[in-house]
Amino acid sequence: MNTHEARLDALRRELKARGLDGFVIPISDEHMSEYVGGYAQRLAWLTGFGGSAGTAVVLTDETLEPAAAMFVDGRYTLQVRDQVDGRFYAYENVPQTSVAKWLGEHVPEGAKIAYDPWLHGKGWVSAVSKALAEKGAELVPVDGNPIDAVWEDRPAPSAAPALVHEDRYAGQASEAKRAAVSEWLAEKKLDAAVISALDSIAWLLNVRGTDVDRTPVTLSYVIARADGTADLFIEDAKVTPELRAHLGNAVRIAPRSAFVPGLAELSGKRVAVDPDSAVQAIFGALQDAGAEIVEERDPAVLPKACKNETEQAGQRAAQARDGAAESRFLHWLSVEAPKGGVDEMAAGEKLHQFRRDTGDLRDLSFDTISGAGPNGAVVHYRVSEETNRPLEPSSVYLVDSGGQYPDGTTDITRTVWIGPGEPPAEVKDRFTRVLKGNIALARAVFPRGTKGSQLDVLARQFLWSAGLDYQHGTGHGVGSFLSVHEGPQRIGKSGGAQGGTEQELLAGMILSDEPGYYKAGEYGIRIENLLLVEEREVAGAEGEFLGFETLTLAPIERALVDRQLLSGEEIAWWNAYHARVLEVVGPLVDGAAKAWLQEQCRPL
Amino acid sequence: MNTHEARLDALRRELKARGLDGFVIPISDEHMSEYVGGYAQRLAWLTGFGGSAGTAVVLTDETLEPAAAMFVDGRYTLQVRDQVDGRFYAYENVPQTSVAKWLGEHVPEGAKIAYDPWLHGKGWVSAVSKALAEKGAELVPVDGNPIDAVWEDRPAPSAAPALVHEDRYAGQASEAKRAAVSEWLAEKKLDAAVISALDSIAWLLNVRGTDVDRTPVTLSYVIARADGTADLFIEDAKVTPELRAHLGNAVRIAPRSAFVPGLAELSGKRVAVDPDSAVQAIFGALQDAGAEIVEERDPAVLPKACKNETEQAGQRAAQARDGAAESRFLHWLSVEAPKGGVDEMAAGEKLHQFRRDTGDLRDLSFDTISGAGPNGAVVHYRVSEETNRPLEPSSVYLVDSGGQYPDGTTDITRTVWIGPGEPPAEVKDRFTRVLKGNIALARAVFPRGTKGSQLDVLARQFLWSAGLDYQHGTGHGVGSFLSVHEGPQRIGKSGGAQGGTEQELLAGMILSDEPGYYKAGEYGIRIENLLLVEEREVAGAEGEFLGFETLTLAPIERALVDRQLLSGEEIAWWNAYHARVLEVVGPLVDGAAKAWLQEQCRPL
Repeated sequence: MNTHEARLDALRRELKARGLDGFVIPISDEHMSEYVGGYAQRLAWLTGFGGSAGTAVVLTDETLEPAAAMFVDGRYTLQVRDQVDGRFYAYENVPQTSVAKWLGEHVPEGAKIAYDPWLHGKGWVSAVSKALAEKGAELVPVDGNPIDAVWEDRPAPSAAPALVHEDRYAGQASEAKRAAVSEWLAEKKLDAAVISALDSIAWLLNVRGTDVDRTPVTLSYVIARADGTADLFIEDAKVTPELRAHLGNAVRIAPRSAFVPGLAELSGKRVAVDPDSAVQAIFGALQDAGAEIVEERDPAVLPKACKNETEQAGQRAAQARDGAAESRFLHWLSVEAPKGGVDEMAAGEKLHQFRRDTGDLRDLSFDTISGAGPNGAVVHYRVSEETNRPLEPSSVYLVDSGGQYPDGTTDITRTVWIGPGEPPAEVKDRFTRVLKGNIALARAVFPRGTKGSQLDVLARQFLWSAGLDYQHGTGHGVGSFLSVHEGPQRIGKSGGAQGGTEQELLAGMILSDEPGYYKAGEYGIRIENLLLVEEREVAGAEGEFLGFETLTLAPIERALVDRQLLSGEEIAWWNAYHARVLEVVGPLVDGAAKAWLQEQCRPL
Repeated sequence: MNTHEARLDALRRELKARGLDGFVIPISDEHMSEYVGGYAQRLAWLTGFGGSAGTAVVLTDETLEPAAAMFVDGRYTLQVRDQVDGRFYAYENVPQTSVAKWLGEHVPEGAKIAYDPWLHGKGWVSAVSKALAEKGAELVPVDGNPIDAVWEDRPAPSAAPALVHEDRYAGQASEAKRAAVSEWLAEKKLDAAVISALDSIAWLLNVRGTDVDRTPVTLSYVIARADGTADLFIEDAKVTPELRAHLGNAVRIAPRSAFVPGLAELSGKRVAVDPDSAVQAIFGALQDAGAEIVEERDPAVLPKACKNETEQAGQRAAQARDGAAESRFLHWLSVEAPKGGVDEMAAGEKLHQFRRDTGDLRDLSFDTISGAGPNGAVVHYRVSEETNRPLEPSSVYLVDSGGQYPDGTTDITRTVWIGPGEPPAEVKDRFTRVLKGNIALARAVFPRGTKGSQLDVLARQFLWSAGLDYQHGTGHGVGSFLSVHEGPQRIGKSGGAQGGTEQELLAGMILSDEPGYYKAGEYGIRIENLLLVEEREVAGAEGEFLGFETLTLAPIERALVDRQLLSGEEIAWWNAYHARVLEVVGPLVDGAAKAWLQEQCRPL
């Protein structure tokens, strides 16, 4: 019996002992985080799956056919077959099926299927309950995760200290932020708001942490009160004297274990809870306590999305620094890669090193996507020892990466031609269409009230006219030394998992602009800059208009541009952009890299 | 006591006699039609209001303050004050307020407010009931409209004969259409569908009529059965031998009064009803009968929207004919208007005459919008004796019009410069931005699955970049010798009354492309062509793509174009479009009009 078979066996014995007929294992934590800490990596422990999104269902009776299933989306259909043993798990694709649908079809009548209410939202619970009820089966919450009961060497949640995020970066003191939340509560006649999203807590209290890879948050919960005070539930080990001094008396500190009793004390109060970020257990605890639950968007979400002047200035400083690291990397690549001998891992590590050399890097903002040739066509590619490819001379290389700096979070994609020789005409055509889309979105001017889904076509139109498209969104929100994927704004087709949202774009929001083109088995192209929504003065304007400031500063590959396909306005944009890259980034690089940058930034 | 005061008084006495505390008077009929026949013009009779959209609420107790209110949207805020007596009605704007909201605020506790269940949808009934319930008041249906009881010379509904819509225009026999509906019913395990939208009935049975101005439908109801048969409820007087022969034995004909008994016979059946087009009374009758109501989109809506080959060919023939009439009009205008002496009414009548001269015109497709100078800036302008303006030399004139022909419905807007002299640079700039948007939408290529709301920005982008916009949708669906405003497809901003819809664009759908710009008090610009969604072969395409065929054929005003603002691709589109206008319309005009057309269609 191998490791994962033994683990599955142990889980089944635990489920049997508890009288349960099955259990659902997502990748999630108590905060419904996009990335979760090692202690919450239950799916990876059980199945060996290494992707960032997926769910398993294990039925207790192993004689059923199938007795377990793995649910992943199109990104992971190959990977799941490599990593998860098909003898024990059926492979299922979402969104073609869903856990709810599958359970409705495969579960015996009268079955009790269990879930951990600290890992699922109430929408999921209600959909799955309904599907099971139609089969005469039942969805039941567990008290204590059955995996934790059999996972012997499960790591403890990180005990790393919470860190103060200084006002010189945050631009607004926590007290002022809490005062705004308290005004909002008063307006809605609410007594309190439960805030469980880690980045919302980080924003509200101006704290950061190192508990989760790639996202600088600290594990905790907050109950914000109408009087401007707050309760912070956090492990003692994480609370330093600096943190205590920073938070002041209006923030009461209690251990994480006091959170549920804290919810129970809200009996009879009107309490705001965000169904998009609060797990079912929070709703359950408030219901049990007899609190009046009012579903509202987490009051930190919108002010967090709209960066203040200080955060904007910090973001610009981080971009200059990050653009210099990216430029030094691209220069290095232009010298080394055509010789052969550079591979995806080495390139990614070199780029990481240039970012470290800035002296200000706290973490990467996500795992670098370093895709040579055909690997560039895998949209969420993550290099491993097994997939590592050399950057072959005369080929296309795509690198999507970003850094976490105390003054800002970056995210940039560049696609380059590894010389020597001229790129094929088709590659130049595709690259130029992607570029034209990127520029059209960057140059957009739009009236107040416009949503990201309305602008999406600007980035796709030149691909569409050639019968091409890309199967991902065009732009996601980005945090300020926080999550590299931050809501509520998005630019995408309307509807779907990667779709645009109903959120209008507001001044101060940061969004990525990342159209792409992917030819399976051959190459991938993506050009990504971050944009800042700004109020735009237009002479003679009727009404209020917005536009974008391009934040990301690093040269775009001129060898891949077919100049004939660009309009005069697009060439003017290119030239102005590269003049600004040279102006801002130029002083931060020297020697051969500086000469290379000057060459890249001359007018097209 | 004047006429409308006396009518209000009579209504109040009627309400009092019935023990009702108020009544709601919409502009609507039993089919929730956009335009209604004279017999259903209750609001106009009661208040004198002549607009196409509005609602009155009359409270029985005239001592209340206010005791009645008129609800209109922004188009009618001026007109309502002219036509409806402010001593008796408070003026209210929607969407700032609504009937539901107003009643919730103004109605005394315990009041019984009445509505006619044959004139409102169930969504409206549920919203108003809720608002009243919160005040301890009640919304109650009337049995017989109280206005009809006091409206002495109320016209009878039209008794005009129903007309056969021949297969050579419809392209598909009614039998085949009913077979498709019966398959749909079988698939959904339904016994029948109630079809109450007049254009759906007209499409399903291949019948037309003259009961409603501008829309060639006949007053009737249909119950379509799973066995492919149908019950048609229609006044005897409208049933000719030709109609009976056309419908055949599978369509049972019964008088309109047999409709409610017909619904009652659906007891125990599973019946599809469309909440977007069926009035509350239909739901009520089915509920009373114990039928199982399944809310589904009217099964005629989507096939009606997707024109078949015959309908497409008919539309092209109608466009050639209509384009010749429009061209002859524009030529006449170019000769007469600069002399002075042409006014909006005369111009509209002349255009109508050119359409009549084709010999095939059955009706206009809507009341012509003939707007000189500042009247062109009134988006839904309808000329009257009071507002009639001369087309002044050296000014801008906008004319939006269309015809109903047996082979197709047209809708075209042209904006022209009335010479002599050069148009102001600002007008040329605005016109050219509108034109660029019109062309960008016409040239769009997009993947299957794209919705109209995703394309809207293409038409607005050039106005937006100058800080300008238009406050209406970009494109509406158009019927085939049916309604000039036909769902479910739309091109517009996401959300709002003029918003795009969730309906993906499908091959065969017809949509208008009508961006505009309006400078209040000065001039209005709109350029409108109809487009046909078509499958588009793109060399090397990955996936299925769609594009548009431009249907409308008449010259666009070259005197208003600033050629410097056009790209090479836009100039190529203009030249190809006008070459096609000359090729198709040229043979249909002669003499001076032909020479003028040739001049207008030479390359830009």
